[in-house]
Amino acid sequence: MDIQQLVRSLKTDNESKIVMLVADGLGGLPIEPGGPTELEAANTPNLDALARRGVCGSMIPIAPGITPGSGPGHLGLFGYDPVKYLIPRGALEATGIGFKLEPHDVAVRCNFCTIGADGNIVNRRGGLGRDDRLTSQEGQARVEKLRAIKLPGIELFVEPVREHRFVVVFRAEGLGENVDDTDPQQTGVPPLDPVATDSQSEQTAELALEFIARARQILSHQQQGGKPKGNGLLMRGFSHKPDLPTFEDVFGLNAAAIAVYPMYKGLAQLVGMEIVGDPGSLEQEIDVLEEAFGGRHNFFFVHFKYTDSRGEDGDFQAKVKMIEEFDAIVPRVTALNPTVLIVTADHSTPARLRSHSWHPVPTILVADTCRPDGCEAYGEKEALHGGLGHFEAVYLMPLALAHAERLGKFGA
Amino acid sequence: MDIQQLVRSLKTDNESKIVMLVADGLGGLPIEPGGPTELEAANTPNLDALARRGVCGSMIPIAPGITPGSGPGHLGLFGYDPVKYLIPRGALEATGIGFKLEPHDVAVRCNFCTIGADGNIVNRRGGLGRDDRLTSQEGQARVEKLRAIKLPGIELFVEPVREHRFVVVFRAEGLGENVDDTDPQQTGVPPLDPVATDSQSEQTAELALEFIARARQILSHQQQGGKPKGNGLLMRGFSHKPDLPTFEDVFGLNAAAIAVYPMYKGLAQLVGMEIVGDPGSLEQEIDVLEEAFGGRHNFFFVHFKYTDSRGEDGDFQAKVKMIEEFDAIVPRVTALNPTVLIVTADHSTPARLRSHSWHPVPTILVADTCRPDGCEAYGEKEALHGGLGHFEAVYLMPLALAHAERLGKFGA
Repeated sequence: MDIQQLVRSLKTDNESKIVMLVADGLGGLPIEPGGPTELEAANTPNLDALARRGVCGSMIPIAPGITPGSGPGHLGLFGYDPVKYLIPRGALEATGIGFKLEPHDVAVRCNFCTIGADGNIVNRRGGLGRDDRLTSQEGQARVEKLRAIKLPGIELFVEPVREHRFVVVFRAEGLGENVDDTDPQQTGVPPLDPVATDSQSEQTAELALEFIARARQILSHQQQGGKPKGNGLLMRGFSHKPDLPTFEDVFGLNAAAIAVYPMYKGLAQLVGMEIVGDPGSLEQEIDVLEEAFGGRHNFFFVHFKYTDSRGEDGDFQAKVKMIEEFDAIVPRVTALNPTVLIVTADHSTPARLRSHSWHPVPTILVADTCRPDGCEAYGEKEALHGGLGHFEAVYLMPLALAHAERLGKFGA
Repeated sequence: MDIQQLVRSLKTDNESKIVMLVADGLGGLPIEPGGPTELEAANTPNLDALARRGVCGSMIPIAPGITPGSGPGHLGLFGYDPVKYLIPRGALEATGIGFKLEPHDVAVRCNFCTIGADGNIVNRRGGLGRDDRLTSQEGQARVEKLRAIKLPGIELFVEPVREHRFVVVFRAEGLGENVDDTDPQQTGVPPLDPVATDSQSEQTAELALEFIARARQILSHQQQGGKPKGNGLLMRGFSHKPDLPTFEDVFGLNAAAIAVYPMYKGLAQLVGMEIVGDPGSLEQEIDVLEEAFGGRHNFFFVHFKYTDSRGEDGDFQAKVKMIEEFDAIVPRVTALNPTVLIVTADHSTPARLRSHSWHPVPTILVADTCRPDGCEAYGEKEALHGGLGHFEAVYLMPLALAHAERLGKFGA
């Protein structure tokens, strides 16, 4: 069954407002056997009160055992099957830096690399030694040089990402996206040529070939201590903006996204949410929510980044502190009295693993239409006994709409 | 995976007998925050004893957040994917009044409507004012007049449903079902003509056109206080009987259905169950079960309606009372000693919402082969911790067959 298709056919409209608070990477693990997770260790009186009022569940981001990246993690939360709706690499990289892709654009994820005198790749991340890579400053400086390149008949964008990574976007109508990567995924060999795999993409491949030639010329003197450094580039993931049905089409919701980081604004934009405000902190995000809440939007996605960041740092205590900061803003949200309030995450990021993980995400849904489930606190262990059970992320939006009484009956 | 396909390939036969008690709309909600649901408030010593003996679970009728109508709700209980096996509107309406559709029949769901002197629809439910509609008596009287219509070469049935609603069935071989609705879904415009959307349905459309013309003539004098009233008709959902595999084919079961209301008898018949008895109350339904139990049937579907009715009325206390009446007949069923006894519902109908809802349905399965799960009572919260977990309705029949030891091993 395609749940999104079913929901699309049942959606109705009313005056309800839904708020989805996403604490990125919230789920965790004990730092030592038998201990609490970050969330269980944190003092979260406001979230615990929500767990008592609402219904809890243990949400599986993609499928049991599958660790999501930020893209699939958020698509699932937004109700899009993340295995069906893949965001191609080039488009995701452009999205992640807040570049607003237009429908005909071809985005390419690029690396600066280091190429030796023999034409072979010495380092795939632009550094000198094996594990060396360019700094963000070095990458940025090279990007600025490449912006001098003009290609006939198209608009060209060269945008820094971080360290050795950057994005190239070719803008013109009729450019196909089916071009092979130039990254051979190994050193000691030369970069590959961009080769079109269908006739519609031949012009794209020619543009890429020309861009690479000009870039090699511009970068030819990049070196350090007499050795070449970051003097070449590798291209991967040529792709159009993915063609996702909009949040409005699927759910009938006029959605606003409130986020600090470009990646999450970008992901929200891919499903047609409107970015509101330009907050720089969680407090400011809630300022934006308060301002926008009375307006024409009826769905609000609010993204909090730092739970994930501290998890990635491997800093258990710092993640606990971030969760407590997150807890502190909850009363400002409940004061708005949304019809449905969801607290969840796109995935777990246990400090112990210093990375995203496959572990389920404790989730709360609060609404007057909730059936009480006896959960007493917001935590991974407690959520296992919740009324939402163990459920996949794609069902979160259907559940939100149902509890907002925005879904009609299926069949008579 | 198609679970029904898998079960079909694994089914075996034995002497076991399965009883499925369905308390329609059983699941509920607290009437006030923190309170019990209808089922939790009810005094149900017999059902609680079953919960202790058997295994419980929280059953999701269709998918999380999806509220089922009676048709999809029961198809799920019967082990048919309700999204795959849709019952078209016309066939469901005929089924709901106990009309036994034959394979070639085309059933149509009809409304009496009121048409003004200018030929435009004044009221889509046959009344005078905007929210007015015909009474069942007025509808019935008009249906009887329309029964005078004869169409060449086919059998024609005109059957009352309720208020302004009635069913028309065209019976002849070779009639297609693909005819557009004549209901424009608005007033101030004339009814549409029935238009075939494929060549096989052209004869059906012609018959419908002819029927409408004769009906308009017969109804032309229907009025009240000099104003036309219920003098026209609108047709929707032209459809054949859905082609469902039978219960016997799929599960190898010779199934009997015991119900008071035509809709549930009709749904059972669509999957090939045999209707036994003609009970008028729950007590009489159990009389029928007792009589039939020793016979050739090995599956018994028993439907209890009034838990849903009182939920739809919004009467929490009356629903509690119905649940207690339902509990009272349980000893008569357990006395028969069925191999597997199931207690469940097609969906929740919380008195608080006065309608069907998406909330899961607490379910008990009792058999000697059950693994104990520690559940102490029959209730929504308790069922969350049951051994069947949170599961979709289509898995209930496979679980019943398994516990009756009617399913072979999958693979060697």
